[in-house]
Amino acid sequence: MDAIKKIILAYSGGLDTSVILRWLIETYTCEVIAFVADLGQDEDLKAIREKALKTGASKVYVEDVREEFVRDFVFPCLKANAVYEGRYLMGTSMARPLIAKKQMEIAKKEKADAVAHGATGKGNDQVRFELTYYAIDPQIRVISPWREWDFKSRSDLIAYARKHGIPVPATKAKPYSIDRNLFHVSYEGGILEDPWLEPPEGMFALTVSPEKAPDRPTYIEIEFQQGIPVAVGKKLTPAKLLAHLNEVGGRNGIGRVDVVENRYVGMKSRGVYETPGGTILQIAHRAVESITMDREVMHLRDTLIPRFSELVYYGYWYSPEMEAIRAFIEETQKLVTGVARLKLYKGNCDVVGRKSPASLYDPRFATFEAEEVYRQKDAEGFIRLNALRLRIRALSQKRKLK
Amino acid sequence: MDAIKKIILAYSGGLDTSVILRWLIETYTCEVIAFVADLGQDEDLKAIREKALKTGASKVYVEDVREEFVRDFVFPCLKANAVYEGRYLMGTSMARPLIAKKQMEIAKKEKADAVAHGATGKGNDQVRFELTYYAIDPQIRVISPWREWDFKSRSDLIAYARKHGIPVPATKAKPYSIDRNLFHVSYEGGILEDPWLEPPEGMFALTVSPEKAPDRPTYIEIEFQQGIPVAVGKKLTPAKLLAHLNEVGGRNGIGRVDVVENRYVGMKSRGVYETPGGTILQIAHRAVESITMDREVMHLRDTLIPRFSELVYYGYWYSPEMEAIRAFIEETQKLVTGVARLKLYKGNCDVVGRKSPASLYDPRFATFEAEEVYRQKDAEGFIRLNALRLRIRALSQKRKLK
Amino acid sequence: MDAIKKIILAYSGGLDTSVILRWLIETYTCEVIAFVADLGQDEDLKAIREKALKTGASKVYVEDVREEFVRDFVFPCLKANAVYEGRYLMGTSMARPLIAKKQMEIAKKEKADAVAHGATGKGNDQVRFELTYYAIDPQIRVISPWREWDFKSRSDLIAYARKHGIPVPATKAKPYSIDRNLFHVSYEGGILEDPWLEPPEGMFALTVSPEKAPDRPTYIEIEFQQGIPVAVGKKLTPAKLLAHLNEVGGRNGIGRVDVVENRYVGMKSRGVYETPGGTILQIAHRAVESITMDREVMHLRDTLIPRFSELVYYGYWYSPEMEAIRAFIEETQKLVTGVARLKLYKGNCDVVGRKSPASLYDPRFATFEAEEVYRQKDAEGFIRLNALRLRIRALSQKRKLK
Amino acid sequence: MDAIKKIILAYSGGLDTSVILRWLIETYTCEVIAFVADLGQDEDLKAIREKALKTGASKVYVEDVREEFVRDFVFPCLKANAVYEGRYLMGTSMARPLIAKKQMEIAKKEKADAVAHGATGKGNDQVRFELTYYAIDPQIRVISPWREWDFKSRSDLIAYARKHGIPVPATKAKPYSIDRNLFHVSYEGGILEDPWLEPPEGMFALTVSPEKAPDRPTYIEIEFQQGIPVAVGKKLTPAKLLAHLNEVGGRNGIGRVDVVENRYVGMKSRGVYETPGGTILQIAHRAVESITMDREVMHLRDTLIPRFSELVYYGYWYSPEMEAIRAFIEETQKLVTGVARLKLYKGNCDVVGRKSPASLYDPRFATFEAEEVYRQKDAEGFIRLNALRLRIRALSQKRKLK
Repeated sequence: MDAIKKIILAYSGGLDTSVILRWLIETYTCEVIAFVADLGQDEDLKAIREKALKTGASKVYVEDVREEFVRDFVFPCLKANAVYEGRYLMGTSMARPLIAKKQMEIAKKEKADAVAHGATGKGNDQVRFELTYYAIDPQIRVISPWREWDFKSRSDLIAYARKHGIPVPATKAKPYSIDRNLFHVSYEGGILEDPWLEPPEGMFALTVSPEKAPDRPTYIEIEFQQGIPVAVGKKLTPAKLLAHLNEVGGRNGIGRVDVVENRYVGMKSRGVYETPGGTILQIAHRAVESITMDREVMHLRDTLIPRFSELVYYGYWYSPEMEAIRAFIEETQKLVTGVARLKLYKGNCDVVGRKSPASLYDPRFATFEAEEVYRQKDAEGFIRLNALRLRIRALSQKRKLK
Repeated sequence: MDAIKKIILAYSGGLDTSVILRWLIETYTCEVIAFVADLGQDEDLKAIREKALKTGASKVYVEDVREEFVRDFVFPCLKANAVYEGRYLMGTSMARPLIAKKQMEIAKKEKADAVAHGATGKGNDQVRFELTYYAIDPQIRVISPWREWDFKSRSDLIAYARKHGIPVPATKAKPYSIDRNLFHVSYEGGILEDPWLEPPEGMFALTVSPEKAPDRPTYIEIEFQQGIPVAVGKKLTPAKLLAHLNEVGGRNGIGRVDVVENRYVGMKSRGVYETPGGTILQIAHRAVESITMDREVMHLRDTLIPRFSELVYYGYWYSPEMEAIRAFIEETQKLVTGVARLKLYKGNCDVVGRKSPASLYDPRFATFEAEEVYRQKDAEGFIRLNALRLRIRALSQKRKLK
Repeated sequence: MDAIKKIILAYSGGLDTSVILRWLIETYTCEVIAFVADLGQDEDLKAIREKALKTGASKVYVEDVREEFVRDFVFPCLKANAVYEGRYLMGTSMARPLIAKKQMEIAKKEKADAVAHGATGKGNDQVRFELTYYAIDPQIRVISPWREWDFKSRSDLIAYARKHGIPVPATKAKPYSIDRNLFHVSYEGGILEDPWLEPPEGMFALTVSPEKAPDRPTYIEIEFQQGIPVAVGKKLTPAKLLAHLNEVGGRNGIGRVDVVENRYVGMKSRGVYETPGGTILQIAHRAVESITMDREVMHLRDTLIPRFSELVYYGYWYSPEMEAIRAFIEETQKLVTGVARLKLYKGNCDVVGRKSPASLYDPRFATFEAEEVYRQKDAEGFIRLNALRLRIRALSQKRKLK
Repeated sequence: MDAIKKIILAYSGGLDTSVILRWLIETYTCEVIAFVADLGQDEDLKAIREKALKTGASKVYVEDVREEFVRDFVFPCLKANAVYEGRYLMGTSMARPLIAKKQMEIAKKEKADAVAHGATGKGNDQVRFELTYYAIDPQIRVISPWREWDFKSRSDLIAYARKHGIPVPATKAKPYSIDRNLFHVSYEGGILEDPWLEPPEGMFALTVSPEKAPDRPTYIEIEFQQGIPVAVGKKLTPAKLLAHLNEVGGRNGIGRVDVVENRYVGMKSRGVYETPGGTILQIAHRAVESITMDREVMHLRDTLIPRFSELVYYGYWYSPEMEAIRAFIEETQKLVTGVARLKLYKGNCDVVGRKSPASLYDPRFATFEAEEVYRQKDAEGFIRLNALRLRIRALSQKRKLK
């Protein structure tokens, strides 16, 4: 195989990807371009750019992808009420394909022949990155340093960093690992590995504990158009709307979950997540659906949520089956327009009202139009024909007993 | 068709079924036996028995079915994580087939030729009662007074009651209707018909509001064996365990939901429910599953929850498809044994620990056995083969573009 | 309710709908307009028009809907590989919503206030007609004479017809009932009610028996574009393509099925069908899919076929859930372009070749590009990670046994 | 890792596994025990035993597993109507887990520390073998020579064989590869790689072509008890029943399919199969189901067939999800008892009769019991309530337009 000439690295500015940056240059003796996605991780991007250059990057791309992230990844998942194994809203899963797609765009522009990422060999993220790379360019070369090098631990990395003049964080590492973006913060590993231990209160970044939330509830109204939230009080862009709900939700202690989940690579893993705005949005979205979505559409859609969520979690964002399910989901959202009213209080997010110009719930059906639309006596035929197969079966069994 | 000689009526002691009792006697000039199920509705069953007799019942059966209700209806739903349209735990839906089954047992014993119930012609309960009747005896005659008589309103009933000397409640009727049993209280109709209005705080019977719940959390541990809760601190019978969790959960403001749901008879309806113990149990059950259930079993099971729940909600408890799904569910629960630790606080019920002798989560897999069981380099082949179809597709499209 | 002034009747020219035409005029003393759909039933439409007028119709619409039928009903089902209970291709089910839709268009144009059909009260067709009527105009009045009048049998109809001067067929009625259109002929009832008896050879209209088919095979090639057949040898319109395949298939004894199926109204029913062209098309369509459709798309789609088919069979063509599933199906067909080669011989229709410019099957992947795209050693990691959860489970059980 | 001391090899007697036998001894300098499963592949097992010993095996196990194969693998698939991608009955997929399970039993008895098989690195069989090995003993060592050695082609193998005195077949290899057992023969590779070319007539082993089948049909009756075929004319053991149907079906040209299928490892592959008895059995089984299985059970089951079949095809026979689905399937088969009558003629296998003591189809329901069980007027209420949500939706849209 030909030697690699140029690599696009998904760079975060942390110790791991800094060591990777250097290691790629040393190992492949080639050019490495760093790509930093601004996903709302709330870090000093200028300093990260500087660090990449100092560590040896030939060029650094820093791109603000927050609006794209929310519009093209968060909202499609919201439309599908996506949730992995009943609890996890998949803030990390959604971000990976976006980063990988951006890397591939830069790879094309820069005529790079390889891409690299800093995900380990035991997690889901490596799959999410690499499936995206391959789906976009089937001939791209993929480098996953954690699966290739011999470093085993953080201290190996620190030794390498010191040797190559890469700045090492002065502060002690946190006793768990973190991933943060505009949608959520995730925590796993370290002290969280014991599934019987409650996470320490000091860990959380986006939310106060319910105990520390205000003693009075906050009421908000969220407006949806065709399945997408467009206003909270006033019209807001996708990223600003989400940021606003993160603030309101976080203040009221909303959106923490603590789960043991099944990784795609085959083992179970304990994760703790804070997703204040996302939690509020999914509750509100379901509330607007409850008055605008047809029953059969909803029940059929509900059977597809586990599969949709699996695709997101496993890393199949760019796949033909995802396109087909998304076509289904889009069709279901055409009339999901309306407003949900929510009460936020110390960790609780309760629907207390919903309304819509396209509402299929209408107390008037139950009153003046009743005679015409619903006749109680119709229920008899409805029940009798639905019972028919049960009765025939019971008759058949009776007959056999004789 | 032959004249009816004896009817078994599902009797609650309220105005409606009292009027029905009398009306059946008048209309069919036959014997009516009242059946009262003690489902934990917390009423004076002696008084109800008296009232039935005074109103004309030839006999009254009062049966304590609380343990049976929890063991044979609540727990099977818990094993399936049953929930209708993502929110409703179906406390009313589960109770109807039990009442109907008991009626049919009495009908057989008493050689009755008909059964009757007090459900209206617009709701789900009529379906749940009648599908059960027909599934058990395909030739039973079913009388549904609300679909037959000409009474339109409560005042019609009161007039009839007064005329026939049936005691009419002195107090004004509540501005909504209620159904209560050991598992939940439901509220619907009346002032709740406006889906934009928050329910009044005074309405709730089993739970305090989160605002009024204690300022300090309560921690509990629930032990499951093969998917069934057997102990909360100490071993308890099914009904006692549920009653205990209702008390603890209710005190902490847990288990209220407010939804617009789709009835089986075709229209949407707003319902408000309190299910403190049931809510806690489902969260705890999922937590124990999270460490004991295989991933593929869980994901497949999750696609069947909407169907299972639909069957319960629609009234198909006694149906062949229910038997088949239940066989599937039973198989999935064989290893769901373990303990969930929960923190209850002002409406929140959070998992803070889970453990099991059958745990599939084990941090040891990630350490000393790692070399043997999980090798990071395996991930490369895993990803590459999973990517293969995506790459072939992308290659095919590239080729077409040339 | 107001008196009915004008009814649009789905009219076939047979005894039943002729009696209905007259009965509607007599019963409702109103105007009745007959609508005759030319679905390729191969009858003398001029004579039918005459008969309607003679029987009392104020006006007759005869519309050739063959191209629309194939393009908008047959082909969408083909794209979905729709088949009810594994065998029935639903030629009758597809035709009913088209007839009903046309009736409603005429009802609007003619300002009619009611529609009527000739389907009995025990079958599926009444549901298919009426669900379509209601979905298009929720306030339309629907008249189903078979559920309303007192006639019980064919001889009742004949007596009524004689009394009102309606021509009665001179020939004895066939000992089964028939429905015919361009897609199929169906047979049910009468002598076919015994599911142990083989249908008489003389019954079949579109196909010869395999025994009487030619002794030499016929080879054909069918070209699909985006899931739709466009050419058999040469380009043909939808209806002409189907007619051509009916002829070729019928000549070779292809497309007979004999089933016991489950009606929507709750009982089982025996049906015999001939669908020569439709059978060929579905086999050819699957063959083109086999080389152009992604595996995961196909497997997911296959789980939705029973539901899609149920919707067609039950009569929910015009429903929101159908729209959502169809959006999914459309997305899956975008690359289903190619040619299937088939061998037709005495009832057999075998795929013997398939090719496509968008093929995902390419022996070249297995040869010169192999090194790059597929490496055998990748299989080890693939298998080991897929086995991981099975191994952890087995380890956990071993540990328990100790 | 420790040196391997004893290997159990799945041995067929062919060139590949003979070379593997020798190569394992040379490479691991350890004892190799050959296991030969008699699956009905119609070969000289004594000669195979001899060859294994001559090639260096320390011991040879030859086991007749035909009855076990049919009873524990073929029949469970039949109960589920398993079929991969709509066509392939999976005769190879079913056999692999049985062979692998037997290997593991011998490994335990012989205290072997490794198992090996002769499947290549590009196919499904490696996965089926190895998932079974790991599921049974998570710590077993697995050797897959085709993924390890450097041989690339048949001529490499022949050279190695000649060098080590392993007999090489005198006849030229067939231009495709074959797998044969009591259930089917499969063909793939070589000249079959071109999906546009019809397979050569001379290839087929179990069936004559339809052209060469008798000119008169054969009628047979198959009796099922609880989903399992027990008699064809007379009672037969599972393997004998299947062998008999293979003979009758093969003589009548039944059960050839020619497909392009999706392998689990990610690419498409062309396969040609003959499954005469299996094809007949599935058609007969569905026929008995058609009169004995409840509609809702059948429709739900049909949505699970693709998943069940995927599990078999991919190699997850011994997996917890398989156990759960099988529990479901078992429940559905409890009443599938009855007889199917079939007409076999030149490739066609048509149901011409079905009967059952547990039949849910009964023309009597349509006649004398009609009044009681089915009332035509019930259909009105049934349709009106099923239409309700469609009408409300149409009303809502009308209102919006105003």
